[in-house]
Amino acid sequence: MALPMRNNLKHFPRFIQKLNSPVRLLCAGLRPENKEAPRSGRVFSGIQPTGVPHLGNYLGALENWVSLQDQYPSVLYSIVDLHSITQPQDPTQLKSNILDMAASLLACGINPEKAILFQQSQVSEHAELSWILGCLTSMPRLRHLPQWKMKSKVKNEGSVGLYTYPVLQAADILLYKSTRVPVGEDQVQHLELAQDLARIFNNRYGELFPEPCALLSSTRKVKSLRDASAKMSKSDPQTMATISVTDTPDDIALKIRRAVTDFTSEVTFDPETRPGVSNLVNIHAAVSMISVQEAVSQARGLDTGAYKKLVSEAVIQRLTPIREEIERLRSDRAYVERVLAQGTCRARELAAPVLAEVRQRVGFC
Amino acid sequence: MALPMRNNLKHFPRFIQKLNSPVRLLCAGLRPENKEAPRSGRVFSGIQPTGVPHLGNYLGALENWVSLQDQYPSVLYSIVDLHSITQPQDPTQLKSNILDMAASLLACGINPEKAILFQQSQVSEHAELSWILGCLTSMPRLRHLPQWKMKSKVKNEGSVGLYTYPVLQAADILLYKSTRVPVGEDQVQHLELAQDLARIFNNRYGELFPEPCALLSSTRKVKSLRDASAKMSKSDPQTMATISVTDTPDDIALKIRRAVTDFTSEVTFDPETRPGVSNLVNIHAAVSMISVQEAVSQARGLDTGAYKKLVSEAVIQRLTPIREEIERLRSDRAYVERVLAQGTCRARELAAPVLAEVRQRVGFC
Repeated sequence: MALPMRNNLKHFPRFIQKLNSPVRLLCAGLRPENKEAPRSGRVFSGIQPTGVPHLGNYLGALENWVSLQDQYPSVLYSIVDLHSITQPQDPTQLKSNILDMAASLLACGINPEKAILFQQSQVSEHAELSWILGCLTSMPRLRHLPQWKMKSKVKNEGSVGLYTYPVLQAADILLYKSTRVPVGEDQVQHLELAQDLARIFNNRYGELFPEPCALLSSTRKVKSLRDASAKMSKSDPQTMATISVTDTPDDIALKIRRAVTDFTSEVTFDPETRPGVSNLVNIHAAVSMISVQEAVSQARGLDTGAYKKLVSEAVIQRLTPIREEIERLRSDRAYVERVLAQGTCRARELAAPVLAEVRQRVGFC
Repeated sequence: MALPMRNNLKHFPRFIQKLNSPVRLLCAGLRPENKEAPRSGRVFSGIQPTGVPHLGNYLGALENWVSLQDQYPSVLYSIVDLHSITQPQDPTQLKSNILDMAASLLACGINPEKAILFQQSQVSEHAELSWILGCLTSMPRLRHLPQWKMKSKVKNEGSVGLYTYPVLQAADILLYKSTRVPVGEDQVQHLELAQDLARIFNNRYGELFPEPCALLSSTRKVKSLRDASAKMSKSDPQTMATISVTDTPDDIALKIRRAVTDFTSEVTFDPETRPGVSNLVNIHAAVSMISVQEAVSQARGLDTGAYKKLVSEAVIQRLTPIREEIERLRSDRAYVERVLAQGTCRARELAAPVLAEVRQRVGFC
């Protein structure tokens, strides 16, 4: 039985309907999708339980997730806790981050009526398929993938989990026979592994998995407010660098006021020579759902200081309902847990027959 | 509900009762067990589904397994099909090998009333715990372990499954909080990984896993009949090298008649200088449950040709009831499947609460 849609989520569709960001489809031999035609296939994506997302997560991925649930007939979003433990985690913090991430996704507009929202570790089939796919993956194939290169502090010294992370990602995707995977550019190589593994499995055991395509949205890359050469990141040691979606209006105003720009007071958009102010223009355009050109034209006549106020107001306006909804959901933990539990059931219903088929093809039964 | 013990298995206890091979316990800071005292703890071991075992498997491991089920209050034996796919397998053959191995284990004397006999891939907790333990295992830790060094044909070119094989082994063991693991000398390093992972997990998440000890039985190492410098092996290309437990009396007699010995006709035991004839003495002693000295004294006055007849008869006498029981069980596939299904249920009952506790400690719930 589906959970009833929360009444107070109803103010989100206005964002969803307006959002129409172009999406690039990255998939061998596939034509770009006709924007007008109803889309087919299954969307899968995962997000690590980092707790409450920041503005960069929201504008870079989650906004797109919200729009995809209206475009595709079947959509799964997973809080990938099995992935999160490839780096050390404090268990109490992890547990609370999982619930915070679930509440945040709901508050950002993920609708459990339209998308299956679930916690990866609760569906045992992910780890099982990952083992099987690992037996089809050569060791060198993983050596140059971004996850390992970026996160293993000393070369070859990370954990087995970190090294095999992309195999579990492939299992996440293939387990649901997913066909569309919204990813950032930095994840394209990981998706290519999933495509390869689909092919390898199909060649060895007969056609089973469709080859999943990357949905590369032209996402605005939100940069740190303290150093516009770096991505906005939750782990940034400078607290002024990152806007959380739960920041209060005062926090947001302060952080944007303190944002590093330059000594030219006019507002222009030139990420190469003026990264700081261009980042603000980008944020302004994204939260107001206008083009960069429109944002710059709204800034005409304003110096950077005055423009920062304008941007603050736009960000506050966009984030306030999300913050309020997260606060409300945090006080209704049982509801969030119920959404996840129901998501788990629905995910298992899809995963179980696929894994059963895999087991049978491999010769286990 | 336990399955009734098969009537026609009743002729096996005579082997079990007579068998009293010394067992070395390999475990940090632990005293040798008192042979007379009732033993405590849980035994776990696994065997790959290679189909019907050969004489080397039987005398080297399975005979010991049979005796352990009478010595320990809780015993689990797993047909480790997840491990088997770290090397390419034909699915139809694998499926049939799983059932053949199960039938063989029963025919060799594994009693499903005393030991839980189950198929690894049917208990999803193995792969799940393996993922979690992989996040606690550093990549270099696995590089020099025997599995990888022996089986990756080109250095570093094997599959991810082959590389991470010992992590899954550790999961197999720890999932049941096993305390005793019968292993061959070549598996001691793998067991050390399981011990390390128990410690690492306990240190990070609080005491949960006992440190498992190796039960190193003084197993007779049965050698190839064609080249006594190599172990007897199912994959030996020379069909005359290996005696299967289902070989007919004629097959057995022929293979032993053709066994490579040397040009001295007297029978002596000296594995260094006379490996061929010493292998026969070893086999003779093992199948007749007598000491090597006793076997040599029985050979007094016989030349190698006559001694080979004596050894053949002893092997045939020992293997005939096993062969007949395997044949019978092959025609009662439903029974074998029922034993495995029931084993799976009982294994899950033990595994589920342990994994639930692990999940909770890690912070997944």
